[in-house]
Amino acid sequence: MPKDWSGSRVDLHLALPTGGARRFAVESALREAIRDGRLAAGALLPSTRGLAQELGVARGTVTAAYDQLAEEGYLTARPGSGTTVAELPPSPTAPGSTAPRGPAPRHDLRAGLPDVSAFPVRAWLASTRRVLAAARPEAFGAGDPQGRLELRRALADYLGRARGVTTSPDRIVVTSGYYQGLSLLAGVLAAGGAGTGAVEDPGHNAFRDVVRRAGFETVPLPVDADGACVDLLTPQVDAVFLTPAHQYPTGVPLHPRRRRTLTAWARSTGGLIVEDDYDGEYRYDRQPVGALQAMAPDATVYCGTASKTLGPALRLAWLALPPHLVEPVVRAKFDADLYSETLGQLVLADLVSTHAYDRHIRAARLRYRRRRELLLDRVAAIPALTAHGAPAGLHTLLTAPAHWPPEDELLVACAHHGIALRGLAELNCESADHLSKKPPGLIVGFGAPSEHAYAPALDALFTVLSSFAASGAGATVPRPVSVRHAWQDARA
Amino acid sequence: MPKDWSGSRVDLHLALPTGGARRFAVESALREAIRDGRLAAGALLPSTRGLAQELGVARGTVTAAYDQLAEEGYLTARPGSGTTVAELPPSPTAPGSTAPRGPAPRHDLRAGLPDVSAFPVRAWLASTRRVLAAARPEAFGAGDPQGRLELRRALADYLGRARGVTTSPDRIVVTSGYYQGLSLLAGVLAAGGAGTGAVEDPGHNAFRDVVRRAGFETVPLPVDADGACVDLLTPQVDAVFLTPAHQYPTGVPLHPRRRRTLTAWARSTGGLIVEDDYDGEYRYDRQPVGALQAMAPDATVYCGTASKTLGPALRLAWLALPPHLVEPVVRAKFDADLYSETLGQLVLADLVSTHAYDRHIRAARLRYRRRRELLLDRVAAIPALTAHGAPAGLHTLLTAPAHWPPEDELLVACAHHGIALRGLAELNCESADHLSKKPPGLIVGFGAPSEHAYAPALDALFTVLSSFAASGAGATVPRPVSVRHAWQDARA
Repeated sequence: MPKDWSGSRVDLHLALPTGGARRFAVESALREAIRDGRLAAGALLPSTRGLAQELGVARGTVTAAYDQLAEEGYLTARPGSGTTVAELPPSPTAPGSTAPRGPAPRHDLRAGLPDVSAFPVRAWLASTRRVLAAARPEAFGAGDPQGRLELRRALADYLGRARGVTTSPDRIVVTSGYYQGLSLLAGVLAAGGAGTGAVEDPGHNAFRDVVRRAGFETVPLPVDADGACVDLLTPQVDAVFLTPAHQYPTGVPLHPRRRRTLTAWARSTGGLIVEDDYDGEYRYDRQPVGALQAMAPDATVYCGTASKTLGPALRLAWLALPPHLVEPVVRAKFDADLYSETLGQLVLADLVSTHAYDRHIRAARLRYRRRRELLLDRVAAIPALTAHGAPAGLHTLLTAPAHWPPEDELLVACAHHGIALRGLAELNCESADHLSKKPPGLIVGFGAPSEHAYAPALDALFTVLSSFAASGAGATVPRPVSVRHAWQDARA
Repeated sequence: MPKDWSGSRVDLHLALPTGGARRFAVESALREAIRDGRLAAGALLPSTRGLAQELGVARGTVTAAYDQLAEEGYLTARPGSGTTVAELPPSPTAPGSTAPRGPAPRHDLRAGLPDVSAFPVRAWLASTRRVLAAARPEAFGAGDPQGRLELRRALADYLGRARGVTTSPDRIVVTSGYYQGLSLLAGVLAAGGAGTGAVEDPGHNAFRDVVRRAGFETVPLPVDADGACVDLLTPQVDAVFLTPAHQYPTGVPLHPRRRRTLTAWARSTGGLIVEDDYDGEYRYDRQPVGALQAMAPDATVYCGTASKTLGPALRLAWLALPPHLVEPVVRAKFDADLYSETLGQLVLADLVSTHAYDRHIRAARLRYRRRRELLLDRVAAIPALTAHGAPAGLHTLLTAPAHWPPEDELLVACAHHGIALRGLAELNCESADHLSKKPPGLIVGFGAPSEHAYAPALDALFTVLSSFAASGAGATVPRPVSVRHAWQDARA
């Protein structure tokens, strides 16, 4: 109920909420009145006795409120001359509104995302319960910049058996996602004098940017049907960043001969191999090809992540490092954010060591395999389209012949139909001669949609592509050989 | 059981484990043999038929294993000339062992740590259950670089009511701990041209280093009984980093007059105030003094954290920013690690909005209040010692008179008795004239030990201090006034 202070030294309607502690109510009302300018700087407040009477509260309540606000700098108490409102800055402007993050796309065919609707909620909760029940107090205290030992142990075992990685818990560093891991690693290498990094072309542009931001000059390694052309590596290259199991975005695995060329390059030049094994768990025609790292554990950084198996929200990734890089990378992690959040690490460690993680991946592999087959069935109906890469991963690159409309136009048409996906062009390195050789391409992720949303997403995509095929007569015009890029020959 | 390959093209004892899939067993055994050098580069492998017979497995099993290993680069298959071991780099050296992180100290009196043995495990698990039950799939997908909206909403409400912060969800950025938040903020400010930062002297050295690493030159602001001497701020200072509610380490709150001086400085110079409210929730004699930020929301960055209320393992902290800093800080967060882990944010949001967070803090406040009183009782028994600061926070600074042994010696004696704590000297800025004026001091954290471990820790500490008092006759020699530093006058 508003109170009229006429007769007091200031004339003010003070709205005092009913209920709650009186002192806080008086304080809040005064604070509000000062902030919104009703009580101006220099205004003399009522005496504590007067205000107490007006508000029907004890005098001590008002005294305490005045004291508190004086302590907070809102009021100035001068002995003998009463309490006045202190000089305050102008009241804040309305909070700026940040741009809303866009709503989820209707048809999410972005690459690199797993089906998070299949997140193993029960298993995660069960592991959380076990972890919390068993946790000693230190689990809630300061963490380990290298990552929790429980998780590093579980990962060393898992990576050895599932990915053929040769490592040990003391060579693993847990990071808040691969992006952070790469950023820390690139920073360490640059600080150590590395200046030239070879990157795949086409390749992941965001990660290329991370490497550049760390201070590297990047040189493009073309990708053909055998993966990155590592035979082009020179002794001037300090580190090569690549995706050997399933090249992003073409999907070709690095040929065994190239694997050997690569490790020979590292051995003879002292160069470092950075192996991004982002979706190495997903191979549909055979056992996943083991990690390249095992062929040169002292010259290779193996990078893995839970983002493609469980979900990126967990921010859990790991580096298996050569011994000489462990300490500097741990130091860089410490400098960046001290250490990663502990509970998620312990839960993942529990999931991995109880094999719930493997079971989840096995089930996911069956789903994604079927999704890829559904995609290829649709591709087969439009002969102008070519699907690239090995039966693996969470995406397939599709390319169209050169007489089709340009890639931009394909992407606009997709966006118009509520389909989110990326084109090939933005993944190219900048050199114009490379660009001109590459066909229009779409990177179709089949991981992201939920099971029931996948077929409608494919329908939407192929409605768009069919219309292009029909209008461009793509199905009847012979494919011009000149636009076929080398990795079009890769096993589809 | 070992198999003898004599008679085959290579002579090798291949240990094939019993049980499990035969193909994987053959593969693993061969991979091991290649890695450890038993199968040398160039060695010709047995024919698939021959090895299958030797091992008692199907020929197709051996063929598949050879194919897999060729794919992985271990073997080379040449049509017509059999399968040979590929050229491989030397086998890795034994993994370097990283230094073990030290064991927990026997008596943990480090400042800035809460009692993590009181972590609200039940409440956390209950919130986790609720969050997982209610989570839509997107909660496991890509996160928000600014922090989950649920948490920003809960924090805006909590900070307004508990800390008097004037903010809104769109002005809050969630970071992986305060350390990261400060690092991102300082980087943004430096990139925007800020070069001079005022820091408290004494003050937190790790955070001073973060500010310097971002590119700031730091100028020390002496601390006296009224907190940081902000009247010394000049227009040349771009940003001032301070702890107004409970100065670290002296424990004095910033005087109301200084609060006004500070906001007037910001208003007239365009300078930025960075308010580290690291333990503002803990005040024992009165309602916590509200955040300084509310007096100048457009010129103040308010920094809060769950590290002192729940535990640092969660890596959950927040910045309440002036509007113009929101976008650049979100961008910096994105560049560092894209976004923070989502589940912990959702669980904290649930804890805060169900008021379980407040209940936890209230209970903790009672415990810490009692611990502080126990500490002061012990201090009172050694008249040479002075306790500084307001009844607040998780630590109390104790200083000894100048005729006591130097601080280093006190710390060594403490360490010898298994007591972990920090001295005052390392928190001083480097200027020698400041150093010489400051008495030997110990920062006694009373938060970290569990309830049952606190009394023994105090016993250990005061056994050490009593011995110094006795040997230095500290209790009988009159305290020399000349060594009393200004903040020794603060309310104890």
